Amino acid sequence: MNVKQKLNNFANWFNNKLENHLKTGTPQKLFDAMHYSLTAGGKRIRPFLMFESAKICGATETEKFLDIAIAIEMIHTYSLIHDDLPSMDNDDLRRGKPTCHKVFGEAIAILAGDGLLTYAFEKISSSQLQAEKLIKVIKTLARNTGINGMVAGQAGDILAEKEGSFNDIQFIHENKTTKFIQACCEIGAILADATDKEINALKEYGYNIGMAFQIWDDVLDVIGDTEKLGKTTGKDIQQNKLTYPAIYGLEKSKKIAKSHVEKAIESISIFKNNETLTQLAKFIIQREV
Amino acid sequence: MNVKQKLNNFANWFNNKLENHLKTGTPQKLFDAMHYSLTAGGKRIRPFLMFESAKICGATETEKFLDIAIAIEMIHTYSLIHDDLPSMDNDDLRRGKPTCHKVFGEAIAILAGDGLLTYAFEKISSSQLQAEKLIKVIKTLARNTGINGMVAGQAGDILAEKEGSFNDIQFIHENKTTKFIQACCEIGAILADATDKEINALKEYGYNIGMAFQIWDDVLDVIGDTEKLGKTTGKDIQQNKLTYPAIYGLEKSKKIAKSHVEKAIESISIFKNNETLTQLAKFIIQREV
Repeated sequence: MNVKQKLNNFANWFNNKLENHLKTGTPQKLFDAMHYSLTAGGKRIRPFLMFESAKICGATETEKFLDIAIAIEMIHTYSLIHDDLPSMDNDDLRRGKPTCHKVFGEAIAILAGDGLLTYAFEKISSSQLQAEKLIKVIKTLARNTGINGMVAGQAGDILAEKEGSFNDIQFIHENKTTKFIQACCEIGAILADATDKEINALKEYGYNIGMAFQIWDDVLDVIGDTEKLGKTTGKDIQQNKLTYPAIYGLEKSKKIAKSHVEKAIESISIFKNNETLTQLAKFIIQREV
Repeated sequence: MNVKQKLNNFANWFNNKLENHLKTGTPQKLFDAMHYSLTAGGKRIRPFLMFESAKICGATETEKFLDIAIAIEMIHTYSLIHDDLPSMDNDDLRRGKPTCHKVFGEAIAILAGDGLLTYAFEKISSSQLQAEKLIKVIKTLARNTGINGMVAGQAGDILAEKEGSFNDIQFIHENKTTKFIQACCEIGAILADATDKEINALKEYGYNIGMAFQIWDDVLDVIGDTEKLGKTTGKDIQQNKLTYPAIYGLEKSKKIAKSHVEKAIESISIFKNNETLTQLAKFIIQREV
């Protein structure tokens, strides 16, 4: 089975688990909005990375980490809902479906994001795993998705686009996308009680596939097909966004992405059974969609 | 010293501690926005309640709980920033100063809120306190400020105001304001290693002062003075908000608030040294500002 099939199988399994979350509550419209965005598809690459990182470090019976994986996907979903808002990227389409604020209105979309983010931490702190481990997970997740990670990256991106007052593309890519992906690998290792050497190898891996992933996203925005991607392409150029192709050109951007993939593969050479994560690293720059 | 002076002294001490937080970072504008709202004043009643609840349960050297108190105030600040947004309550003025989005723009205000919320959990998980205790704190805080608490209450409030599709004022007040205030009391007790009986007494106290606080806020919006309150009054009626005075009339609302204060005081009769929290409960319905 190739990694695309593995990823698809995982996504199907994971989507079934997600389906039961946040279906009903008061006010129902808030829960409808959260559930709509949470179950609107997506590759589920972050929870997949978390589970595979745990497995590569020798963890078995990984289903007990499901709550953490769901929390990770909730944080990813909240970030998409807020990124799509009119005052942010102003996107009408996400994964081929109308964005949350298009369906539920802007106020409920903001609150759905706030709700998913807060619930992620409720979910982790309600897990039956050991408290010391959970605290490490929360710290790693919050640090990499907050003001020293994803939120800072998104702020840099917005300021670059709207004001031209920020121009550090490396900072944006590292913070907006990479640190969260890196955190998923690190969390998998933490859950598996991995050694420091293993944790560092997976952080290195996560950093490099995260960079490759984001650079490849920039590339796909130039060469991709709106229908296949399920989101509007060519928007980066229209919106005058800082992207790797805009700065380095298309061919050099592809080369940089490829070199990150090579570094990622090298970093996990210390593990036996590194086939899935190796394939995944290669797959990132083969994606058409 | 009366409770107003105690509260003022505490706010001065706490503001000094807050002042050093989130001052610099990248992008600077994001940090400016968070710092602006975090240091824009306010009564600091939630951290005060947390500390006083810990003390009434016998905790000493409570300064070691400072990180938790700061996290609490960050979550309160994030909620104000998001509530004030144009698509939500559309407020230009907060604590007598222009609201975050008025100064920094809507996108940065949304991200400042997201950043404060996420950083609150980073802050707690980075504390040196015992992991089991921190997990309890995180669970209590997330549950009461998220989709079973504050976020749900704000969604109900917005839907009542904008669509008339929600009309449960009790739900709104309990969730939007009360549960967070209740959580601050509960967290103080958790930090102090209180007994279940003590925790429940403080939850009962927190519930009742939370309800009194919100009902009194509704009352002040009718009878208050814009200049003293530092926010626009009369907005509730203008915006057709669900409030206690709108449903029960002014005099009955005052009576309900008073009865909550009495219940709050009764619930902490099990504690010695309950003078400060007793005074605070009374003070809530004496506030002019």
